[in-house]
Amino acid sequence: MESISKGLEDVNIKWTKLTTIDGEKGILRYSGYQIEDIINAGALAEEIQYLFLNGELPNRSQLDLFREKIEAGYDVPDYVLNAITNLPRSSDVVALQMNAIAALAATEPFKWDKATNRDYAAKLIGQMASITATGIRHVLGKEPVKLKSSDSLARSFLSAVFDSEPSERAVAALNTALILYLDHEVPASTTAGLVVVSTMADMYSGVAGALAALKGPLHGGAAEAAAMQFKEIGSPDMVESWFKENIDSGKKRLMGFGHRVYKTYDPRAKIFKSIAENIGLTGEAKNLYEIATKLEKLGVNKFGPRGIYPNTDFYSGIVYMALGFPLQNNIYTALFALSRVTGWTAHFIEYVEEQHRLIRPRAVYVGPQERKYIPLQERK
Amino acid sequence: MESISKGLEDVNIKWTKLTTIDGEKGILRYSGYQIEDIINAGALAEEIQYLFLNGELPNRSQLDLFREKIEAGYDVPDYVLNAITNLPRSSDVVALQMNAIAALAATEPFKWDKATNRDYAAKLIGQMASITATGIRHVLGKEPVKLKSSDSLARSFLSAVFDSEPSERAVAALNTALILYLDHEVPASTTAGLVVVSTMADMYSGVAGALAALKGPLHGGAAEAAAMQFKEIGSPDMVESWFKENIDSGKKRLMGFGHRVYKTYDPRAKIFKSIAENIGLTGEAKNLYEIATKLEKLGVNKFGPRGIYPNTDFYSGIVYMALGFPLQNNIYTALFALSRVTGWTAHFIEYVEEQHRLIRPRAVYVGPQERKYIPLQERK
Repeated sequence: MESISKGLEDVNIKWTKLTTIDGEKGILRYSGYQIEDIINAGALAEEIQYLFLNGELPNRSQLDLFREKIEAGYDVPDYVLNAITNLPRSSDVVALQMNAIAALAATEPFKWDKATNRDYAAKLIGQMASITATGIRHVLGKEPVKLKSSDSLARSFLSAVFDSEPSERAVAALNTALILYLDHEVPASTTAGLVVVSTMADMYSGVAGALAALKGPLHGGAAEAAAMQFKEIGSPDMVESWFKENIDSGKKRLMGFGHRVYKTYDPRAKIFKSIAENIGLTGEAKNLYEIATKLEKLGVNKFGPRGIYPNTDFYSGIVYMALGFPLQNNIYTALFALSRVTGWTAHFIEYVEEQHRLIRPRAVYVGPQERKYIPLQERK
Repeated sequence: MESISKGLEDVNIKWTKLTTIDGEKGILRYSGYQIEDIINAGALAEEIQYLFLNGELPNRSQLDLFREKIEAGYDVPDYVLNAITNLPRSSDVVALQMNAIAALAATEPFKWDKATNRDYAAKLIGQMASITATGIRHVLGKEPVKLKSSDSLARSFLSAVFDSEPSERAVAALNTALILYLDHEVPASTTAGLVVVSTMADMYSGVAGALAALKGPLHGGAAEAAAMQFKEIGSPDMVESWFKENIDSGKKRLMGFGHRVYKTYDPRAKIFKSIAENIGLTGEAKNLYEIATKLEKLGVNKFGPRGIYPNTDFYSGIVYMALGFPLQNNIYTALFALSRVTGWTAHFIEYVEEQHRLIRPRAVYVGPQERKYIPLQERK
């Protein structure tokens, strides 16, 4: 049999100027900037979104103009939000995002064009924010909402979801989360979206395809699954017995651990952990954090020698919980998507504008050789 | 720079027991059966759907049971059809399908399980039929509909869309179209869906991702684009001048011509052409057919020596038009999707059950090397 590139591991699907990952050293750079430097400098998420779509950090006036383009997306058509509120409140929020983005794909005129691709992407960030806020509110029994202009996407989003002014600490934490999840080269979601836009389908359809892939537990779904796992353990003093019972036995997979590319600590995991440490955890979030840190030690002990360490999803859920987002309906994965939409569209633009080719792999046939068709009435 | 597998050409993403294509000889087989033999024997589309999901042709009782499972899908939840009718009537019907399938992904419980995967796939064929019928009716200004049981999917579908009993010839033609578009190994749509389910996302999300890719003009969108091109030419005596003006000049791409795999006639194109010849064309469909046959000659003359021939999308639109489906809102591509959903789910099942691995390729970084982060206030 001809060889198969299982999981497309070691296959290069494109070139990129966006993100570098050194999986051995645990280094992540956005367009050459170390992720730690970006976070430590207190960058606004919109600055980094601009960097992804334009290749350079913006100056003040460029940033202001870019933020206007994002905010223009806040006012999504009513039928898009109605698409969400029409569905049961038990819905998965990532699927609600997909449903709403498909509504945009159904109706919005779109043509790939170097002159306008970046404007569409900026607007899509704003559209995703109103869609995500409405999706989260819908499963919580609240009315749909469109974001209102403020000094940051993070602030506008928190205000819209919770109907109240967020604390500065909350705004800073969400802003950081938006940066940390912004891009990660070509994981399954980005790859699915690239395959979509390689057919010259519109940008919205590309994002819908990416959302479909993000939903899976082996990808973005891990953000929610990791927190669910802490909840299932219940209390810090149960960690050891749970680990023995479920992980040592091989019964369960340790969620939020391991990564195809990183063979050491994911630098984003460290940053999410430090946000959790500094945000002033209380209640359930505090409990889950204590469970998580104990679990981290056991996991690293067991799996570290094999290059399996906490990934970005291990602590992100605790940060989201601390911000007031409940652990239900895949909300944490939807928050991941709100951030990642920038990376998706930036990769799509890179691909369509500069290296376009229809993505069409092959399969190796291992089925029956030519056989004679037997009509129904003669079959046994 | 490390090499890139552009378009994943020559990359084998999986093995399959489903479809073989010999692109040099123009041979297409479904699980070992020649496409011509299947069509000439008058197979019911459901027999071939069963073949894809189970590996063998069904006997009468297996077929009856399988058809019941499909028909169980006709009764989609009302909120799924409302998701469609909530959107503007100007919508792209493939995006309406995506929107409705995302609604199912949002709400339907799903777990990959060998014991139930095939039942879900059968039901999805039925669900897609009610979704597609409703999508088409919606853009034509009609009420939503759920298919009713009959002796075939093709008959139930035509009755539902047009509110009247279809002719036997129409049922036979749609039945054949359902078989011809059923699967084609791993084109972009199937690949996008495979990437989605490789994350262990649900089957509905896989189909949503595949629909997103099918929508593009370089893939399923060609079914509509080819017919649009005939319409644009307007009359048979304009073909030569249009060809000179648009194709010889390189201004436009000849739609419905050329295929990544076939380097000779696509066997499906020949069958679609013979259906068109025998269905008794009248009016616009007849006119477009005459345009198409003239265009085919010019195209084969020019591009044949380079291995570029009519593909399956070249004549399919004329058949759909003859069946009463108008050339608008991407309806012809939606009909393609109604058929292809079987191939998609059959490939997903093969992948998840027997060869699962998260699909995660790499990108080659060609951007700026490490650089120092300059805060906003210091940027020029």
